[in-house]
Amino acid sequence: MINKTFERLGTEPSVIRKIFAYGLDQAKKIGAENVYDYTLGNPSIPAPAKVNETIRDLTKTVDSLHLHGYSMAPGFEEARNAVAANLTEKFGRKVLPTELFLTCGAAAALISSIKALSYDGAEILVLAPFFPEYRPFIEANGAKMVLVPADTETFQIHADAVEARITPNTQAVVINSPNNPSGVVFSAETLTALANVLERKSREIGHPIYILSDEPYRELVYDGVTVPFIPSIYRNTVISYSWSKSLSMPGERIGYVYVPSDIDDAAAFFAAVAGASRIMGHVCPPSLMQRVVAECCSEAPDLETYDRNRKLLYTSLTEMGYECVKPQGAFYLFVKAPNGDGDAWVEQAMKEYNLLAVPAAGFGCPEYFRLAYCVRTEMIERSLPAFREMYEKTRKAAR
Amino acid sequence: MINKTFERLGTEPSVIRKIFAYGLDQAKKIGAENVYDYTLGNPSIPAPAKVNETIRDLTKTVDSLHLHGYSMAPGFEEARNAVAANLTEKFGRKVLPTELFLTCGAAAALISSIKALSYDGAEILVLAPFFPEYRPFIEANGAKMVLVPADTETFQIHADAVEARITPNTQAVVINSPNNPSGVVFSAETLTALANVLERKSREIGHPIYILSDEPYRELVYDGVTVPFIPSIYRNTVISYSWSKSLSMPGERIGYVYVPSDIDDAAAFFAAVAGASRIMGHVCPPSLMQRVVAECCSEAPDLETYDRNRKLLYTSLTEMGYECVKPQGAFYLFVKAPNGDGDAWVEQAMKEYNLLAVPAAGFGCPEYFRLAYCVRTEMIERSLPAFREMYEKTRKAAR
Repeated sequence: MINKTFERLGTEPSVIRKIFAYGLDQAKKIGAENVYDYTLGNPSIPAPAKVNETIRDLTKTVDSLHLHGYSMAPGFEEARNAVAANLTEKFGRKVLPTELFLTCGAAAALISSIKALSYDGAEILVLAPFFPEYRPFIEANGAKMVLVPADTETFQIHADAVEARITPNTQAVVINSPNNPSGVVFSAETLTALANVLERKSREIGHPIYILSDEPYRELVYDGVTVPFIPSIYRNTVISYSWSKSLSMPGERIGYVYVPSDIDDAAAFFAAVAGASRIMGHVCPPSLMQRVVAECCSEAPDLETYDRNRKLLYTSLTEMGYECVKPQGAFYLFVKAPNGDGDAWVEQAMKEYNLLAVPAAGFGCPEYFRLAYCVRTEMIERSLPAFREMYEKTRKAAR
Repeated sequence: MINKTFERLGTEPSVIRKIFAYGLDQAKKIGAENVYDYTLGNPSIPAPAKVNETIRDLTKTVDSLHLHGYSMAPGFEEARNAVAANLTEKFGRKVLPTELFLTCGAAAALISSIKALSYDGAEILVLAPFFPEYRPFIEANGAKMVLVPADTETFQIHADAVEARITPNTQAVVINSPNNPSGVVFSAETLTALANVLERKSREIGHPIYILSDEPYRELVYDGVTVPFIPSIYRNTVISYSWSKSLSMPGERIGYVYVPSDIDDAAAFFAAVAGASRIMGHVCPPSLMQRVVAECCSEAPDLETYDRNRKLLYTSLTEMGYECVKPQGAFYLFVKAPNGDGDAWVEQAMKEYNLLAVPAAGFGCPEYFRLAYCVRTEMIERSLPAFREMYEKTRKAAR
């Protein structure tokens, strides 16, 4: 007898993958140059040259048994040291190697944190718009997801809306900044307001409400924007990170959980992350990649391409009349469908123009669609007439 | 509030790691040459040269975006094709790429299979002696572990003992051959007896009982022994594998689940493996290593060192009077403590001789201890007097 929940989770079509697959099919029929694919959040800038150089060097200088051997579960000491030093320098806050548990990517990191807080009835708040995988991550790992509606004015955190949803079972709030799908970076002001609410409510309900901060896009910001370091604003913060985006190596599955030692129940939280990881089959983080990030974690991504795409797409679409959130980070543009129906807009754009976007109902904002602009710039240029025609058609339809 | 189960799983001391850590401490005090460490099942032969050559070639010939990019969840098509072709050739049975789900190592592979069969009350049988991690893998993933005592005569499968423990809730039997810790390879005869029992009992209880075959040591065999390919003996078999041992790269976390398409509910099983993996944070298997195993999966490990160690240790210990299971595979020697108390023997050997073994109570055989002979041969030679003295002391104690 097969577990039906997991069977469903393994078969339910991902909307993103479905549209992406449609695009591949169309590309075969009508030529790739006639398909405008904005579906996947897959880095389009190569890894810094140092990544491959480091890999080659390591294969020549480190003994095979060490290079490809097991590390302890939280990672090699050298890797944890290097990452802690990098974070300390970057954020001006002492980060200890022993506060880091290296994982196979940010998804595993976040899930181990969720499991660490799970119990029957535990509630975890998620702010719309949100990465759709948060739902199965939470619901299939022993907690209940409670959705906080989006503030569609600013796409910042609506602290009052968070407060209204806190119950004695609230264990955490997941935040994701720079945000997928909106591209918004949560401001220090909005984070401070959230921190005030969480501090007050934690006292009220008699146990800590943690922030689980999912930060794979932390290094992808534009216009000189600073991403506030959340543990400096709210003490009970646990971070999930991966180098998937900052080093353009999403397939290599390397990230970490950062459990600051000054959070409530820090030792128990860290242990529970280790225990949850253990029963998810984490034996150690990938060993070669641990040494790669140890060497490369201070490499900055070359954001010029993303930034050029961001400006081109944002400026062009707003000039046409689209309402878009001004993205400050990540590589997504979050656009309001002129007819107010993201699903319908995406369907029509796909069928009539081979213009592939992702409807945002799954992100908690059904009026919107998401464009991933980690694409070739010339594809954006060629796609603009399609956006224009779609605007005219769907604006009329909305009247 | 922190989940107590995961906190405990993250803090309870592993006996193996504790003894290993003691050995490191002692090495600092009295010199590494005076510590005889047989604790860790960590490969001691380097990865085949082709592994590092392939890694270097890939960094030069494959575009970074592809090399380090996401694959689909079950792996790159090329990697699944290569592995399927290799298995087909090796075992004379058509293995399809679509039957393979690549994972971050065998632990993740086995756990996703366990989760695929989990429900409240589901029972999974485990045969002693067994890899101790099976217990948390099963018990923290929604099933109950039912232990089948060892047949200490042969350390083969005791089919009657299995049959006696099957209930209407029995979902699977985990088998591990070559076995950790006994080094025994289950014979075709013993497997056929098990298959007969499982077929009969599956009919009786009205649903399939699967074999979950955990095979990380499959390529580590000696004396020309053949490891039977279990799906050819019992149809409802799902295999977990990793290249940790066969390519000496345990830190790289790359393996697979093989769900043959002719097992009962094959499509649902495969989907449930995918769904379970998804909510454990598996996004894709490590991308560089997928290509490495695609290139290197037909490389055979150079077993000469292991075999030399095996013969030396087995012959020496049996000549001294120890009762040992004759190991045909893996890199473990399973030894009966002369005083019949594995815990006490290990404690004394550690304290008096800095001879580090693992007591086998956690493996389900408290009279035994395990020696991992993936070590330097000269360490074995130097350790023999300690074994001899321990034999004399504990044999006397047993009288």
